[in-house]
Amino acid sequence: MKVYLAGPDVFLPDAMAIGRRKKEICARFGLTGLFPLDHETNETAGTVAAPLSLQIFRCCTAMMEDADAVIAHLTPFRGPSADAGTVYELGFMAARGKICTGYTNRCDSYADRVDRAPGVAPDASDLVNLDCEGHVIENFGLADNLMIVHALEAFGHSILAPGAEPADVWRDLTLFEKCAELIASQK
Amino acid sequence: MKVYLAGPDVFLPDAMAIGRRKKEICARFGLTGLFPLDHETNETAGTVAAPLSLQIFRCCTAMMEDADAVIAHLTPFRGPSADAGTVYELGFMAARGKICTGYTNRCDSYADRVDRAPGVAPDASDLVNLDCEGHVIENFGLADNLMIVHALEAFGHSILAPGAEPADVWRDLTLFEKCAELIASQK
Repeated sequence: MKVYLAGPDVFLPDAMAIGRRKKEICARFGLTGLFPLDHETNETAGTVAAPLSLQIFRCCTAMMEDADAVIAHLTPFRGPSADAGTVYELGFMAARGKICTGYTNRCDSYADRVDRAPGVAPDASDLVNLDCEGHVIENFGLADNLMIVHALEAFGHSILAPGAEPADVWRDLTLFEKCAELIASQK
Repeated sequence: MKVYLAGPDVFLPDAMAIGRRKKEICARFGLTGLFPLDHETNETAGTVAAPLSLQIFRCCTAMMEDADAVIAHLTPFRGPSADAGTVYELGFMAARGKICTGYTNRCDSYADRVDRAPGVAPDASDLVNLDCEGHVIENFGLADNLMIVHALEAFGHSILAPGAEPADVWRDLTLFEKCAELIASQK
């Protein structure tokens, strides 16, 4: 079974090493991990190369089509939510009927991470808390936007979050390994 | 033709009014706009209600299945990228073969919006700029993450962005209207 390895890992300076570790964990469970940076972005000689960003898009899309499942790394990235590219890919895989799994290495909820408007106290029972721009803060106690969290339940397995935050939220693969195990158990 | 109206509009205090305006614009082009807040979240009497967040997820998913196209409002929300729920929905609609359109009311690029590491100067020709956490900044001069931008090209129409930023980036519907026009032209 092939597993697409989605996540902001590709933006870490040691991305290739993380990809290798993820693929090794997959192999231990009899899975083949497909890591976005493994693609070949050079077009065949003689053709005009598409812009690099478009080549990457095409390769990632081809890898997703080829995969049977996804493990989405959903640790919040540059804001209170997961990396946008990863979230797009989760939606794509959900709609294609692939097995969806995902993990975050943060323990707090989405609402916990959003800066609130001054004077508006957080209240678990209150769905109309406002952020600093006056926008409503979705406050269901979920790890991220409800579409992400419930998509995982509906199209695979519930999002995994740690009991205690690991020392390195970007590189800890404990929950990644559990996702691989969940996928392997469905074979 | 039915059009799913994705966007962080649902988090604005005047969300219902914005939804009405969007549906009116759709109607002018012979389209039926499906706005997420129009769903019925109450379960049938006698059944145990699912948590509200799950009811919303189910209703949004049913609306997406029912729609022929999506207009995704992609103005960056709580960070340098578009709203996570909207991005998930774009991925879902792309994979289901629906007509994908989207707009942002910001003129700057994704890379422009990310805080850079001190001492690392932005350089258009340099793909290894780092953010404050030491993570690589995707720097293709695109309006958002490459998966979002190229998905729109591949599965519908290129992202629309304004020549000059409108006074109210959350409520200006000039580009929304252009998206509706693009969808209507495909009928």
